[in-house]
Amino acid sequence: MYRNFKIVPNIIFGRGCFSQLDEILALQRKPDPAPMTFVVDDVFKGSDLNNRIPLKDQDLLLWINVDEEPKTTQVDSLTREVQERLGRPPGGVIGIGGGSTLDMAKAVSLMLTNPGSSADYQGWDLIKHPAVYHVGIPTLSGTGAEISRTTVLSGPEKKLGINSDYTLYDQIVLDPELTAGAPPEQRFYTGMDCYIHCVESLEGNFINAFSRSYGEKALDLCREIFLQEDPESDDKLMMASYFGGMSIAYSQVGVCHALCYGLSYVLGTHHGIGNCIVFNTLEEFYPEHVAEFHNMLNKHQIRLPGSLVADVSQDKLDKMIDIALRLDPLWENALGKDWQKIMTRDKIRSLYLRM
Amino acid sequence: MYRNFKIVPNIIFGRGCFSQLDEILALQRKPDPAPMTFVVDDVFKGSDLNNRIPLKDQDLLLWINVDEEPKTTQVDSLTREVQERLGRPPGGVIGIGGGSTLDMAKAVSLMLTNPGSSADYQGWDLIKHPAVYHVGIPTLSGTGAEISRTTVLSGPEKKLGINSDYTLYDQIVLDPELTAGAPPEQRFYTGMDCYIHCVESLEGNFINAFSRSYGEKALDLCREIFLQEDPESDDKLMMASYFGGMSIAYSQVGVCHALCYGLSYVLGTHHGIGNCIVFNTLEEFYPEHVAEFHNMLNKHQIRLPGSLVADVSQDKLDKMIDIALRLDPLWENALGKDWQKIMTRDKIRSLYLRM
Repeated sequence: MYRNFKIVPNIIFGRGCFSQLDEILALQRKPDPAPMTFVVDDVFKGSDLNNRIPLKDQDLLLWINVDEEPKTTQVDSLTREVQERLGRPPGGVIGIGGGSTLDMAKAVSLMLTNPGSSADYQGWDLIKHPAVYHVGIPTLSGTGAEISRTTVLSGPEKKLGINSDYTLYDQIVLDPELTAGAPPEQRFYTGMDCYIHCVESLEGNFINAFSRSYGEKALDLCREIFLQEDPESDDKLMMASYFGGMSIAYSQVGVCHALCYGLSYVLGTHHGIGNCIVFNTLEEFYPEHVAEFHNMLNKHQIRLPGSLVADVSQDKLDKMIDIALRLDPLWENALGKDWQKIMTRDKIRSLYLRM
Repeated sequence: MYRNFKIVPNIIFGRGCFSQLDEILALQRKPDPAPMTFVVDDVFKGSDLNNRIPLKDQDLLLWINVDEEPKTTQVDSLTREVQERLGRPPGGVIGIGGGSTLDMAKAVSLMLTNPGSSADYQGWDLIKHPAVYHVGIPTLSGTGAEISRTTVLSGPEKKLGINSDYTLYDQIVLDPELTAGAPPEQRFYTGMDCYIHCVESLEGNFINAFSRSYGEKALDLCREIFLQEDPESDDKLMMASYFGGMSIAYSQVGVCHALCYGLSYVLGTHHGIGNCIVFNTLEEFYPEHVAEFHNMLNKHQIRLPGSLVADVSQDKLDKMIDIALRLDPLWENALGKDWQKIMTRDKIRSLYLRM
């Protein structure tokens, strides 16, 4: 049995294509023009991008703060705000930002048509009703959030995505100019999210020719971007992110993402930098790629923070291990059916203590 | 202005995934089960694949012959046959075969909901109504017909596609096992369609990072398949075809396809072999790739037919030139805005006379 998978059906790519957003949304505003809701990373408040958002009367512009990873409580309160302020479902939800913002916008678009709390839907295929029309516009490249069928949320009990075909964006706007202003460290960490999940997918057991074709090209692009000088690197990184996301269709992430989920849940470490901190300790599992990653760190003069876990309480460390161990598909992809013999609690503890 | 392009939204890939077709169609048969229409290359009559087609009561199975390239008259008569035999639109049209069959099935699915002759719609975005649900299942890899927004037809006046977002399949089933039985020469010629259109797209003026990422990977895959020994070559060729098709999103084919259209229209030469015959004479435009193509010909011991055009009448040769010259976007992509200064009638004539 193979997965019959759904992909984002409408794509526009090109430098400056953000200017075509107004025209794209116009088709959705007809015939009964319901207001649009823009969910935008608050770092853009007052920026040039802010002024270019094609707001019409009654549209909502919601600035969101993503200093912390997205939470189910935050999604629920944003959803309520939209419902209360508009009094009816919006004609569309448009997410503009990095992976966290894109995930928030996806989650809000789902929760506007599905009752209860977003925490009720953390898992696989629990969503019952199609989301409202939603558009993803990345301003950072690497997470693959623009193309993925998940929205990763920290809930009351777990960090887990709302995985559903309905989660997928209806439209993505890929404008490499929007990523030009990102701080270099953040750009690096987010790019490494792509590099690392491609490594995990290519080195895993679930891979096939479809996912391999996407993953290999994404990895090639990451090498051109992070190990060479490349004037087109913003364009290429945007494509690497898209290809990296597509490569997950018939594969899975692995050791790094599983451990990173535990780290982020307990310490709130952001996904991009968290992955780098974890991957740095995984030479036993991905030897050649960890060496290549070190070259990328050196070339970009990135110093990873250390000793994050050393002083963490025993309880918190146990919680990290619990969260990581829950991710069976990731471990099975990385280590095979007998992964529990290799990845014991003690083994995970010893890896965490190196971070 | 960039094109906001639509892609095939549902994909299943994997060896043996054809067996899941019944289940995929079941979702479309509900709640009012309209019969399905299968449009199948008649080389499969009596084959194992024939027996595996998930036919239900009242479904139509139409065997089609693609010894000649698809014609608008053939599309119109197939459409009438479906209308007369079913008395209502089918729940779906499923094309099973190579590029010609896939194009026929796309065209029939469009003409079931759009009045008049398919010749009325040869061009760009002339289709007014969505097609009936249609599924593409390639049994040869390379044309990209499974993913393209066109269906190339020979009409009363021209060979030109019905280019429309509605032309795109709603679902594709990519099962590399279905391509295993193709005759080696046909497999080669069809694979070269992918190789050649990637060369034209990568060497053209319209390319951007999106199309380049797809085109480069498709070309890499073609090299692995046709210049090395590769046990996974059916899987890879299916991916190369898909990637080659996607690379056209922001690019165009070039000199070879333009000349091949003229050749096919007048002599009926099939697209795959036609492209090879033309590309063989284009060392002036694509020097490195024509050399690489010769290595592929040698490795696969393919001898191209020669002297096709030498004895053709002056009238027919003029018609070929007319057809080729009509394809402005292809020439502009290959040779720039001033292409008419380079590609004169005499120049085209001299190229044709070498074929």
